[in-house]
Amino acid sequence: MKKIVVSLLVILLLTAFNMRQDKQKIVFFGDSITQAGVNPGGYISRMAETLRQKGLADKYELVGKGIGGNKVYDLYLRMEEDVLAQSPDIVVIWVGVNDVWHKRSYGTGTDPDKFEKFYTAIIKKLHAKNIRVYICTPAVIGEKTDFSNELDGDLNEYASIIRKVAKANNCGLIDLRKSFLDFNLENNKENKASGILTTDRVHLNEKGNSLVAEEMQKALIK
Amino acid sequence: MKKIVVSLLVILLLTAFNMRQDKQKIVFFGDSITQAGVNPGGYISRMAETLRQKGLADKYELVGKGIGGNKVYDLYLRMEEDVLAQSPDIVVIWVGVNDVWHKRSYGTGTDPDKFEKFYTAIIKKLHAKNIRVYICTPAVIGEKTDFSNELDGDLNEYASIIRKVAKANNCGLIDLRKSFLDFNLENNKENKASGILTTDRVHLNEKGNSLVAEEMQKALIK
Amino acid sequence: MKKIVVSLLVILLLTAFNMRQDKQKIVFFGDSITQAGVNPGGYISRMAETLRQKGLADKYELVGKGIGGNKVYDLYLRMEEDVLAQSPDIVVIWVGVNDVWHKRSYGTGTDPDKFEKFYTAIIKKLHAKNIRVYICTPAVIGEKTDFSNELDGDLNEYASIIRKVAKANNCGLIDLRKSFLDFNLENNKENKASGILTTDRVHLNEKGNSLVAEEMQKALIK
Amino acid sequence: MKKIVVSLLVILLLTAFNMRQDKQKIVFFGDSITQAGVNPGGYISRMAETLRQKGLADKYELVGKGIGGNKVYDLYLRMEEDVLAQSPDIVVIWVGVNDVWHKRSYGTGTDPDKFEKFYTAIIKKLHAKNIRVYICTPAVIGEKTDFSNELDGDLNEYASIIRKVAKANNCGLIDLRKSFLDFNLENNKENKASGILTTDRVHLNEKGNSLVAEEMQKALIK
Repeated sequence: MKKIVVSLLVILLLTAFNMRQDKQKIVFFGDSITQAGVNPGGYISRMAETLRQKGLADKYELVGKGIGGNKVYDLYLRMEEDVLAQSPDIVVIWVGVNDVWHKRSYGTGTDPDKFEKFYTAIIKKLHAKNIRVYICTPAVIGEKTDFSNELDGDLNEYASIIRKVAKANNCGLIDLRKSFLDFNLENNKENKASGILTTDRVHLNEKGNSLVAEEMQKALIK
Repeated sequence: MKKIVVSLLVILLLTAFNMRQDKQKIVFFGDSITQAGVNPGGYISRMAETLRQKGLADKYELVGKGIGGNKVYDLYLRMEEDVLAQSPDIVVIWVGVNDVWHKRSYGTGTDPDKFEKFYTAIIKKLHAKNIRVYICTPAVIGEKTDFSNELDGDLNEYASIIRKVAKANNCGLIDLRKSFLDFNLENNKENKASGILTTDRVHLNEKGNSLVAEEMQKALIK
Repeated sequence: MKKIVVSLLVILLLTAFNMRQDKQKIVFFGDSITQAGVNPGGYISRMAETLRQKGLADKYELVGKGIGGNKVYDLYLRMEEDVLAQSPDIVVIWVGVNDVWHKRSYGTGTDPDKFEKFYTAIIKKLHAKNIRVYICTPAVIGEKTDFSNELDGDLNEYASIIRKVAKANNCGLIDLRKSFLDFNLENNKENKASGILTTDRVHLNEKGNSLVAEEMQKALIK
Repeated sequence: MKKIVVSLLVILLLTAFNMRQDKQKIVFFGDSITQAGVNPGGYISRMAETLRQKGLADKYELVGKGIGGNKVYDLYLRMEEDVLAQSPDIVVIWVGVNDVWHKRSYGTGTDPDKFEKFYTAIIKKLHAKNIRVYICTPAVIGEKTDFSNELDGDLNEYASIIRKVAKANNCGLIDLRKSFLDFNLENNKENKASGILTTDRVHLNEKGNSLVAEEMQKALIK
């Protein structure tokens, strides 16, 4: 009798453990765009809602860890406390807009070689803990489709660096820059600088949050 | 007898006057690229050579007035002395690279609205003297064809301003930015930053000078 | 009889001429600080008020010609229309803050050599019309007295250029940078960045306008 | 007998341990100025020579860990490998010139709040290993003594931050900015931009290396 009880307990524990195991914890690690992602209508909130609708709510835990103004080295500085301490299964990194933008606005952007170096260092620390990593290209600073947004050249360059880093480190790539450009080529015939996927050339409006949520789901939710 | 002599003199004078009239004086007004244009192999020297070969040497006088580092307002400052004093028939303005580049390199580029304002002021002063004006878009700061040269976005924006200014002021437009991009799409399959039409991403190599000479001739020599 | 009439006419004409001569027209030529100078409480309004109180209102006409964001080359561009067209007796130029500030904020400041060149060109054009010229050093971008305002180094450099230009061109010098620093050393013991003579580190508060009015009067009103 | 041998061994070991203990390992952690510090005539080489002359060579081990172009966050990134792996007793941090300079030259300087944050993070990691920390103010970008070096304002601000960080974290402070200014006030009467303590406004000449070596010795060698 006692044996049976113990066996049952073990089975229950294993089940619980498995269930717990099954719940994937995804941390979204980024800047102000990700900080806003947990707001109502934000891209993280939208993904959570979709998961609920699909009955997958207990399979995934989505955690937003975005801080406004962050550049790649800011992520590196706070990754222990904000990401590793969460013991995530998956980390989605989305950073780069400020690394480019702050060059012009404050003189405090990030050199391309340093961008790659810090990005790689973050990934290596995550991989060392067996965390799966997805990385995203910066979407837009300006939505004009003829590459006449002031920082398009540099943003394209940093997007290339991220694509290269993803390949070199076996990370998943979520190419939001490409998604945004494709969407704008279709939907921004007037070559407007904002108002299609962003409110202000950078931060996401409803449609922007929805597009990002879709792209993330395609990559993350199997 | 006296009458005949006078008549002959008048005829000679008229001929001389007509010949002089026929000779079109073209001033090339710009930055270091134009400064180098009068060197052996430079785009102005090449045009002069072509005119000689075509037997048109006495129809055109080509004068280079380029100074390294010049931005649009530098042209405005020196236009009386360097251009109007030459009494040209035609002025070709080619400026813009430093207006964009110096933003990043020295913090002393030109705001887009000021760029348009000074450019228009120069044209108005030339038109007031019945001088025909051709204006050129800035060619390249980096020859990569995927719009990942750091300053591509801004350079495209300033090229747009020039196209707009040409239309608004009835100037001829020599769209070198377009010519260079078209050439590179064809001939720079490796997406190199320099070495196709430039030596250093900005200044013209032999092929670059030759392409500019051709484009200028198409527009200027009828 | 005829002689008397002629004499009277001559006297009347001379009087009219003298009266006209007596009223000095002073144009204040500058940026946003001068633009605000004609507002109630602004430094130009204060000078006008002082002149009224001293019974000198019909001896001087003060005209403000400041435009926000102006740098030295903007003054050069608009000097015919805004200054020469006014036929002033005296022009007071006060510019430089944006030439330094916009380097950092927009990447569109003015190189020191260009600053000197345009400044000198303005003065020469004014002197050619026999207009007396006074030039002012830029006051402050930040009021801290220990030279730890971010742009102090550059601002000191541009102030030096102006002092040199004044000497080289025999202009009056109104050294507002010195006046502001002296005042702050006395009255800003807490080393605050603003609130002593400015509202926002650059634009004048009541005390600032009053100090500038005093300094200008000392130099201009004999 | 055996007991005596063991006792002797223990004594010898303890002595060796103490001797080892006595040898202080000092790591100099910084940018290109420190990278050059280990060259012949460099400030670290000079300190080592002085220690030899004083018969203190076996009391101190000096290790240079400077890399050109480094900013505070570059030090943070490489501190485990380059500093902690050395198990130093003392770390001298000297950084800041590039954090200020690169704002203007590349648009990739460091925001003051981030500068303080990364600096503090480095110190905390060192203190957690019981390493004593000395921090230095950035010396000069330009040696003019009237605060008209372009970046003086910002450099003074970052020097203030370092003084504050030293106090807040109980670090030794080596105030090289003050030492350099004092020296120049005495020895640079012509207000030259370089050639007194630097070769090029930033990097140390012989006299500069000698001054730094002296100031470091005063602080470090008791």
